[in-house]
Amino acid sequence: MNLLLLHDEDLREDGTAHLTGRRAVHAREVLRAGEGDRLRVGRLGGLTGEGRVIGNGPEGLHLSLSLDTAPPPRAGITLLLAIPRPKALKKVLPAVASLGVDRVILVNAARVEKSYFDSKVLAQDAVHELLVLGLEQARDTIPPQLQVRERFRPFVEDELPGLLTDVPTRLLPHPTASTPVQALHPLPPGKVALAIGPEGGWVPFEVELLSKAGFLPFSLGPRILRVEVAVPLLVGQVDLLRTG
Amino acid sequence: MNLLLLHDEDLREDGTAHLTGRRAVHAREVLRAGEGDRLRVGRLGGLTGEGRVIGNGPEGLHLSLSLDTAPPPRAGITLLLAIPRPKALKKVLPAVASLGVDRVILVNAARVEKSYFDSKVLAQDAVHELLVLGLEQARDTIPPQLQVRERFRPFVEDELPGLLTDVPTRLLPHPTASTPVQALHPLPPGKVALAIGPEGGWVPFEVELLSKAGFLPFSLGPRILRVEVAVPLLVGQVDLLRTG
Repeated sequence: MNLLLLHDEDLREDGTAHLTGRRAVHAREVLRAGEGDRLRVGRLGGLTGEGRVIGNGPEGLHLSLSLDTAPPPRAGITLLLAIPRPKALKKVLPAVASLGVDRVILVNAARVEKSYFDSKVLAQDAVHELLVLGLEQARDTIPPQLQVRERFRPFVEDELPGLLTDVPTRLLPHPTASTPVQALHPLPPGKVALAIGPEGGWVPFEVELLSKAGFLPFSLGPRILRVEVAVPLLVGQVDLLRTG
Repeated sequence: MNLLLLHDEDLREDGTAHLTGRRAVHAREVLRAGEGDRLRVGRLGGLTGEGRVIGNGPEGLHLSLSLDTAPPPRAGITLLLAIPRPKALKKVLPAVASLGVDRVILVNAARVEKSYFDSKVLAQDAVHELLVLGLEQARDTIPPQLQVRERFRPFVEDELPGLLTDVPTRLLPHPTASTPVQALHPLPPGKVALAIGPEGGWVPFEVELLSKAGFLPFSLGPRILRVEVAVPLLVGQVDLLRTG
């Protein structure tokens, strides 16, 4: 935890914050914060800054706040992700939050198991907690927007174009594509969408629909990577391709 | 498991292979491989190709082999890694194997806990199993070389230069460095070493020693990433910086 993230319900009318639970325990037992110490804090969706410890005991952590710094810049990336197994999703959600991804859309695909959509990892509280872990890690305050779409075709045909009006560059890593990732350099400035398939890859029908929606297939090479490895790798590469 | 990895002890004198345990169960229950089916196989440290099923039952999986394809190209990357917590190490080892990293050196650092070196994840069998998981994932046969060094200073001063004689480019991602990653483009051809510190970063003394060993500090930006996220991101970026 590299930043204590404050929620609206932590804030008091006098402008101070009162934290309990995991964050208070962290401040007490890991940071060993005593009266007068300054801790790095941020307000969910807002600014970051310092919290000066007014009190820290079993009843919680009481801070006076000075929030004046913008959170880190966004990655400018939308991820369209074939829904991963729950175990992988639990790794991917904190990772995408820590990377500053703007939006994650979990979609169905021919090669994923329908049951993944019933995972308790997708419960609103569970998702929020996983995203917050990533924000605390990266000292960010803005979680990715998360959408879950169980029907691939109507989503890609009817809804996706509207979601991507401000996303000019759309890429589809695909094992059999002939364009190598290096050939994408330089990407035009602006936001980028990445459509990352399941481990077995998107099926031809899915590639066709995504291509019609403007996604350009390219190849990362012969290695098949787990989604939790592929996502940071691709986010890092897009960052370089756009600015390098 | 995208490839069945064969060890020497699986091979019979007649050139066939006989597999038991996890891989046989996978072939039977996941791949549902029957007589005559062709499975993707590779020999640890050697070629990949096909295994034709001769028999598949509770006594194991019997394959005739045709191995004629080189494994995927290496990443050409040496990772010098401040030893992560055991839980993170269990994620990082399969990841580095799947990425084709040549060598991983786990070192001590001022900001890691000494007890990490006693982790049972570092037992030879445990390491081998984690690396094999990564190879099976990426259809590779060549595991990264792994070295563990508990004394940072003598290692960096006395041993590291000899290990890096064929590694011209040496990089040190460091939060406070003034060179952004984009400014590294293009990297000279050849192998690259990356020295990835603990979450709190390398301390100044460590940065100084690594700088003397030819490591150039650069910054990835303000986000602090978990090692299992930073490693694939950096490997992907080095790949682009060297070839892009």
